[in-house]
Amino acid sequence: MKRPPKISSITVSDVAREAKVSKATAARVLGGYGRVSQAVHVAVLEAAKALDYRPNELARSMTTGRSGSIGVVVGDIENPFFSLAVRGISDIARLSGINVILANSGEEVEAERNAIRVLLAKQVDGLIVTPAQAGDIAHLREISCPLTLLDRALPELDVDTVTVDDRDAALRATRMLTEAGHRRIAYVTAAVLSGDFRGAASRINTSTVRERILGFLEACREAGIEDAERNIRFGSRRSERSHASLVQLLRSADRPTAILASDSVVALDLFKAIRECGLGIPRDISLVTFHDADWTSVTTPPITVIDQPVYALGKSAAELLIRRLKGDDRPPERIVLPTTIIERMSVGGPLTQSDDRS
Amino acid sequence: MKRPPKISSITVSDVAREAKVSKATAARVLGGYGRVSQAVHVAVLEAAKALDYRPNELARSMTTGRSGSIGVVVGDIENPFFSLAVRGISDIARLSGINVILANSGEEVEAERNAIRVLLAKQVDGLIVTPAQAGDIAHLREISCPLTLLDRALPELDVDTVTVDDRDAALRATRMLTEAGHRRIAYVTAAVLSGDFRGAASRINTSTVRERILGFLEACREAGIEDAERNIRFGSRRSERSHASLVQLLRSADRPTAILASDSVVALDLFKAIRECGLGIPRDISLVTFHDADWTSVTTPPITVIDQPVYALGKSAAELLIRRLKGDDRPPERIVLPTTIIERMSVGGPLTQSDDRS
Repeated sequence: MKRPPKISSITVSDVAREAKVSKATAARVLGGYGRVSQAVHVAVLEAAKALDYRPNELARSMTTGRSGSIGVVVGDIENPFFSLAVRGISDIARLSGINVILANSGEEVEAERNAIRVLLAKQVDGLIVTPAQAGDIAHLREISCPLTLLDRALPELDVDTVTVDDRDAALRATRMLTEAGHRRIAYVTAAVLSGDFRGAASRINTSTVRERILGFLEACREAGIEDAERNIRFGSRRSERSHASLVQLLRSADRPTAILASDSVVALDLFKAIRECGLGIPRDISLVTFHDADWTSVTTPPITVIDQPVYALGKSAAELLIRRLKGDDRPPERIVLPTTIIERMSVGGPLTQSDDRS
Repeated sequence: MKRPPKISSITVSDVAREAKVSKATAARVLGGYGRVSQAVHVAVLEAAKALDYRPNELARSMTTGRSGSIGVVVGDIENPFFSLAVRGISDIARLSGINVILANSGEEVEAERNAIRVLLAKQVDGLIVTPAQAGDIAHLREISCPLTLLDRALPELDVDTVTVDDRDAALRATRMLTEAGHRRIAYVTAAVLSGDFRGAASRINTSTVRERILGFLEACREAGIEDAERNIRFGSRRSERSHASLVQLLRSADRPTAILASDSVVALDLFKAIRECGLGIPRDISLVTFHDADWTSVTTPPITVIDQPVYALGKSAAELLIRRLKGDDRPPERIVLPTTIIERMSVGGPLTQSDDRS
């Protein structure tokens, strides 16, 4: 049943010609070593994709019995953040003739543990994981093949990791809200924390959750907003109960005048809840979210977003992992990718808001 | 590394008690046999999920060496249609203690072939596939383990298949447009067809594509619209070129006054193109799409959709497959699930349209 990876007749020279770069440059990009400009990098990858270039170096370098596949365990495949990151991973893997098999943890550590066990039993050569819970990582430590963490760093696990600048992004987005005059700003996140973190945000284990909260709190502190921690809402998931709790927040006497959402799934639910309560954006409430999801640009008003380089996140994770599979034994790398804010129409000042009780 | 599936201490009786049904009824639902009402079915599954019930019957019944995993190959994991179907599959598999591993074909038959080869080499017990191309199915015929087709039937492949009533859905949606007075109605689909199908739509191999086109053409015929086939646009994919071609269509002198989109990814691209051209929905153009995607209810206006039972589609496919894994050797089943139209605000009459040249 098992056949060797297909060997394409397209060579590095063909790709170089198509991309209008030197063969050495094309080889650098395709081999994942050395540095070239972003534009050249993209040109070479696009040329490789157009020609369906599939190198066989990796296949040659790998020990017999290896399958030429990597396993990817994501938190929630229904979240467009993860499906886009998976495309980044898949595009790079394909260039190396490596297959990607996916599993979904549903953000549950038990399911994650199980998925990793299954993928290892199926002899994947390496794993890319977005850890569901930073407090429960014994199963990640035990992984014997190369491991790359995607989107979430674990301070205690020194492996290749690609994240975005979550803290800075949350800081800038929150600052945008405080500078517009908001004082009652909520941060709504899907993350679930066990125990009370008040005054100890820096001890939250999951890096995305911790860094975003620290950025949010820092911007609040700068603006002299006291006890901002009580405005953090955890556990906002795709469920009726979660939605009801958002509606309750929006109907409360001291409802926030601005909200920062941790991802586009949370933000869509917020958008619906805001409309359900008869509130206008940005007249009654301002809304900013992480992730430039498709829908954020087609609503009325369109939503201001923190644009994360999600495709690049997946791409970098795959590049790091494939380098390890090729035998690279340099110390683990921690790559942090920058984000940008795309300002649309969902942020206003609280002074224009009809119902400000502050 | 490989451990036996975890055996939970939650029993069928516990689930029955939680769901407030008899033990026999709970066993029927959990075992995937017999018939119960939809409400009872849902109640039992929810109780099982809440209690984290994981039966071990299947594990016991399976031959040693089997892995307790199924492989799923979907067309486009970035399309929310597929990620929702995968949740349906995963929820059912989980109840049987079976792991789901996923691969993405990107609607390319070569990638699909490769993914199936890899999953079989990794010894999955069964496969669920949405065939990328109905004309190229030799690799599907060769599959030696149980196979269930998801969303797309293949006339030549007599295996368990779950689809929705695509023809009837397209017929009803198009009829809604003709009854509103539209004559220039376009059907825009992501499907790519090789060769000219004019006058031979019934020979298109991929069932979803064929059935929807037949439904569309039937409604046009009923309304006396001639040569409706020329209003079918194939190959609308997530790409700049595709978008440019839609803009061109919308700027043409005889642009359609109404469009039916084959999925929500195509529809979102259309929505953006329509706005880009300065056209109003439904003033200048009416829009209806397959799939009640999240974004369709938050746009202005909200979009009328054909609501497909996507979660149930995945669920049924998993149930059929798991029955085979348990040794069921009845003849293949072909299940067709019904769809409903959710009328929102995106359909108007061409008489109200400012620029009708018909």
